[in-house]
Amino acid sequence: MALIVQKFGGSSVGDAEKIKLVAKRVIETHRAGNQVVVVVSAMGDTTDELLDLANGVSKNPYATPRELDMLLTAGERISVALLSMAINDMGEKSRSFSGLQAGIITDSTYGNARISEVTPDRVQSAITAGEIAIVAGFQGFDPSSGDITTLGRGGSDTTAVALAAGLHADVCEIYSDVDGVYTADPRLIPTARKLQAIDIDSMLELAAAGAKILFIRAVEFARRHKVNLRVRSTFSDDPGTIVYSTGESMEESIVAGVAVDKGQSKITVVGVPDVPGKAAEIFTVVAKGDVNIDMIVQNIAASSTHLSDISFTLPSDDFKKAVAALEMDKPSIGFESLQLDEKIGKLSVVGSGMKTHSGVSATLFGALAKAGVNIEMISTSEIRISVVTNIDQVDDAAKVVHSAFGLNGEAEAVVYAGTGR
Amino acid sequence: MALIVQKFGGSSVGDAEKIKLVAKRVIETHRAGNQVVVVVSAMGDTTDELLDLANGVSKNPYATPRELDMLLTAGERISVALLSMAINDMGEKSRSFSGLQAGIITDSTYGNARISEVTPDRVQSAITAGEIAIVAGFQGFDPSSGDITTLGRGGSDTTAVALAAGLHADVCEIYSDVDGVYTADPRLIPTARKLQAIDIDSMLELAAAGAKILFIRAVEFARRHKVNLRVRSTFSDDPGTIVYSTGESMEESIVAGVAVDKGQSKITVVGVPDVPGKAAEIFTVVAKGDVNIDMIVQNIAASSTHLSDISFTLPSDDFKKAVAALEMDKPSIGFESLQLDEKIGKLSVVGSGMKTHSGVSATLFGALAKAGVNIEMISTSEIRISVVTNIDQVDDAAKVVHSAFGLNGEAEAVVYAGTGR
Repeated sequence: MALIVQKFGGSSVGDAEKIKLVAKRVIETHRAGNQVVVVVSAMGDTTDELLDLANGVSKNPYATPRELDMLLTAGERISVALLSMAINDMGEKSRSFSGLQAGIITDSTYGNARISEVTPDRVQSAITAGEIAIVAGFQGFDPSSGDITTLGRGGSDTTAVALAAGLHADVCEIYSDVDGVYTADPRLIPTARKLQAIDIDSMLELAAAGAKILFIRAVEFARRHKVNLRVRSTFSDDPGTIVYSTGESMEESIVAGVAVDKGQSKITVVGVPDVPGKAAEIFTVVAKGDVNIDMIVQNIAASSTHLSDISFTLPSDDFKKAVAALEMDKPSIGFESLQLDEKIGKLSVVGSGMKTHSGVSATLFGALAKAGVNIEMISTSEIRISVVTNIDQVDDAAKVVHSAFGLNGEAEAVVYAGTGR
Repeated sequence: MALIVQKFGGSSVGDAEKIKLVAKRVIETHRAGNQVVVVVSAMGDTTDELLDLANGVSKNPYATPRELDMLLTAGERISVALLSMAINDMGEKSRSFSGLQAGIITDSTYGNARISEVTPDRVQSAITAGEIAIVAGFQGFDPSSGDITTLGRGGSDTTAVALAAGLHADVCEIYSDVDGVYTADPRLIPTARKLQAIDIDSMLELAAAGAKILFIRAVEFARRHKVNLRVRSTFSDDPGTIVYSTGESMEESIVAGVAVDKGQSKITVVGVPDVPGKAAEIFTVVAKGDVNIDMIVQNIAASSTHLSDISFTLPSDDFKKAVAALEMDKPSIGFESLQLDEKIGKLSVVGSGMKTHSGVSATLFGALAKAGVNIEMISTSEIRISVVTNIDQVDDAAKVVHSAFGLNGEAEAVVYAGTGR
């Protein structure tokens, strides 16, 4: 008997009919002889409707994050209760749990709380008694204040992975309208191929590089606690993609996939005095606004001027904040000007096989050169190479690179699944 | 500095604009130098919408009352969070609390839980710190299971009174679209007069007799814990009606008001063998279905037949259930037939002065006789006389009686407010 955690997003429980479909699916898994814990998000548009109400009573609901969390967590209470009713109505026993009742313990950061501990005793009792446990995603409980908290973007994925870790589940299945992890975004590159399996390190790099399949916090949690994930579709029986955190029997691919991120900006600080500590000064100013800087390039100063340029990339959401902070401290830092690029393209090639295979860079840059794509910045990790390009070129660049690494579906190369290349 | 509990029903918080009006009202009370605790119901149609969803996923949501309570309590979480946001946005500090957080401890009866204890430590801390506390009505917490419960019909009134008792509040204000307690339902009798004050015993009898102003459980709670209530309108500044539980400085009226109940039925069990224990047998059968019997009349058996008739009244909602139970046990009880009257009218005259004043019955029955109203049954308490009439006659009967006791607004008699009659 396996213990399976299944997570269904808001679009999977969008109305009564969809909830009944999910109930059927959950019951099938249970009747196949598994213990089942289900994590659900709020129904379809519930969160947006609640936010509309909040904006109707307050000029800035985010000024009262505690109250906003109280409000938004109502959404998952509704969906868990309805799913549990549907399952009971179909003849299986089921019980719903709020984040508090499921033992999702967090810190005090309303709106973006971190899970500090999972004590799923009640959930464990329910499944031991043969019931299907339904847990509200996205929400937790801060014991220091006694308050309800929310986990921020992708919070339901994180709830599912945390519960899978706390219950020592065999697998955590993440259901959505996508039926697996692809070598690239299929909307962008129709020849992209679904992977049967991928290792968690590559999945983490893909998520960090802008792939929208899984939220990076959930992947990090799975990696740290060695939880195997399966990404699959609510609306098909396709087995989807297994994401291995336990490293067993994996053939390592050279390149697992190509990711594109169009939500990044670039700022170049021009004419920075070439004295020690100036870079630190710049990034201290930017960091004050809680901005996550991604890539950094510092040009060597021409000896005649004793001035250098520093370029960095950051999420476009933080762009205006960072520019304002730099402009305000311009006199004390003493740079000449800012050169701004609000929309850049970032292309990443990810694969755990890069650790041991040379030649990846040569293939990548060869393909980009042939396609006439201009590279503005480069950064690398052990299993990833990212390049910044003009926003208008990045989609075409992704197609060329995807093809150059033999990832297209019609190509012979099967990267995974024990073919042992 | 007084401590005031204010309760606002669903229609008072029906949309964002109404929530902002309530916020203003609450803030005015707070700025006048009072500590304020606010209890709110779910917004307008929320509960109906949630029940629609439940009926969409389950043939019988009431078969899973635990899940139904999880579902419905989402409604009050939404309204408390929004009201708290609105108050914060207007510049006062406010904090919302779920039933659990406010310490509303109940038994395990999902859907109709009884409050066993109130431990409002967090609410007390909030108001001590100068904040306005907003508490979700209708919901509680069962510590034996760790589950959320709901308090049943009129649950938010009960929450407000229980909190007022637990916090030793000076008064519990119940806001609705009615601006006080009237001598009769003003929709039925336009000359009905608003009372400035009424004693809790009379209020309890009025509520039990079918007056819709306050829920009987809330009034019972207020009486037991000596909580003074004030019934007033959300949409006017009228002081409304004070309901005294503490008995101070009250002039006792002979008759405080006239109540009409059109939701009652009558069953006559015809030809019951005149042997001891038969009445008990009948009421045991009826009681099995959890039916509350109101009035009972047993006719003396004619000595020639040794058979008697037993009539009783009950809420119309329980009528079919009771009839079915009696029909099923007809052979063992051995009665001849049932005479059914699904819709009867019940008219009650209530007033704590009846204890010491004679002549009330004479006035009542004189007025009814003059108006040609046929009386089918009579029951009395120390401060109430109720009569059962034909459903079609009860409204006219109420007008005649209301007038006979001098309760009309244009009459000189002022029943309350220290005129000392």
